[in-house]
Amino acid sequence: MSLHASKIILGIDPGTIVMGYGVLLVNGQSLSLLHMNVLKLNPKKDQHSRLELIHRTVTEIIREYRPDTFAIEAPFFGKNVQSMLKLGRAQGVAIAAAIQAGLEVCEYSPKKIKQSITGNGNADKIQVWQMLQRIVPIQEVPEYLDASDALAVAICHYYHTRSPIKIPAGKAASSWEDFVRMNADRIRQ
Amino acid sequence: MSLHASKIILGIDPGTIVMGYGVLLVNGQSLSLLHMNVLKLNPKKDQHSRLELIHRTVTEIIREYRPDTFAIEAPFFGKNVQSMLKLGRAQGVAIAAAIQAGLEVCEYSPKKIKQSITGNGNADKIQVWQMLQRIVPIQEVPEYLDASDALAVAICHYYHTRSPIKIPAGKAASSWEDFVRMNADRIRQ
Repeated sequence: MSLHASKIILGIDPGTIVMGYGVLLVNGQSLSLLHMNVLKLNPKKDQHSRLELIHRTVTEIIREYRPDTFAIEAPFFGKNVQSMLKLGRAQGVAIAAAIQAGLEVCEYSPKKIKQSITGNGNADKIQVWQMLQRIVPIQEVPEYLDASDALAVAICHYYHTRSPIKIPAGKAASSWEDFVRMNADRIRQ
Repeated sequence: MSLHASKIILGIDPGTIVMGYGVLLVNGQSLSLLHMNVLKLNPKKDQHSRLELIHRTVTEIIREYRPDTFAIEAPFFGKNVQSMLKLGRAQGVAIAAAIQAGLEVCEYSPKKIKQSITGNGNADKIQVWQMLQRIVPIQEVPEYLDASDALAVAICHYYHTRSPIKIPAGKAASSWEDFVRMNADRIRQ
């Protein structure tokens, strides 16, 4: 397999307890999963140690997989200001690792990610997971869906830079099969 | 002047529009200002460029002054979840620069900082600034009080690690002179 014109996208779903990450290889039209996993953060540890662990882990992933782009899931709403500050910090240390490595940084809202993968911005985690399996060969079911959510961020970035998705007319929530039909080029055979 | 047993504390008052920073040299009981300034962030620029600028600037300050400790002002309340997420990210990229350099990271609430400098957790910016001038020789009035606020964070950290401040009995708000008297060792003659 030639790696010319290939691109590697690191998707991150940052959280203050679990951070998911997925590394996607784009080779022409072909998508493949290089790695996905979660970083579990011990809530009993102080916040600075957790931020340090996030920063170190993202730095190591970048060093190992040398992605071209860093795509992050960025919610715009949260339970309260305190949790949003913590989430912002977790995102910030992860983004800093990407900045240091000179990567392009892109962010997508959860709604945009779900819409880009399933055609429905309100899809649940299971729907996203099921659709992901039709897009990319995945050998193992991840222990945490945060890992596949991160892969979804990377795929969302790929779709976003390639071409707009085709949303079927009518109610998105009931149109998954339509979405799959209209976006057949995205589905692996 | 011997630099043995001296310590350098970098204080940061992070914001999404203006970030203040102050570098404090602690030499025994003597405090002196090495540098203070603000980084102005163009609100018209995209958020990632601003985060990159914060990260780069903090990295450069650390490289130049080689502080031992990174002390950051961390508010726990904000206007709304969106502004707190942005603030969290700004803090996160600054904290990441400190983590990379292996610095000790400490944070203090605005109330704690004001109390530690003036004896009154509800002091206004001007009161903090006036008291700061009595603690540390400052040659120039800063253009933005965000710079002296950052210096206040550094001084707060120094006090915090040295000894608890002495709060006069009675109403803190009316006891500035009492506070100064009780904490005479903190005031330069």
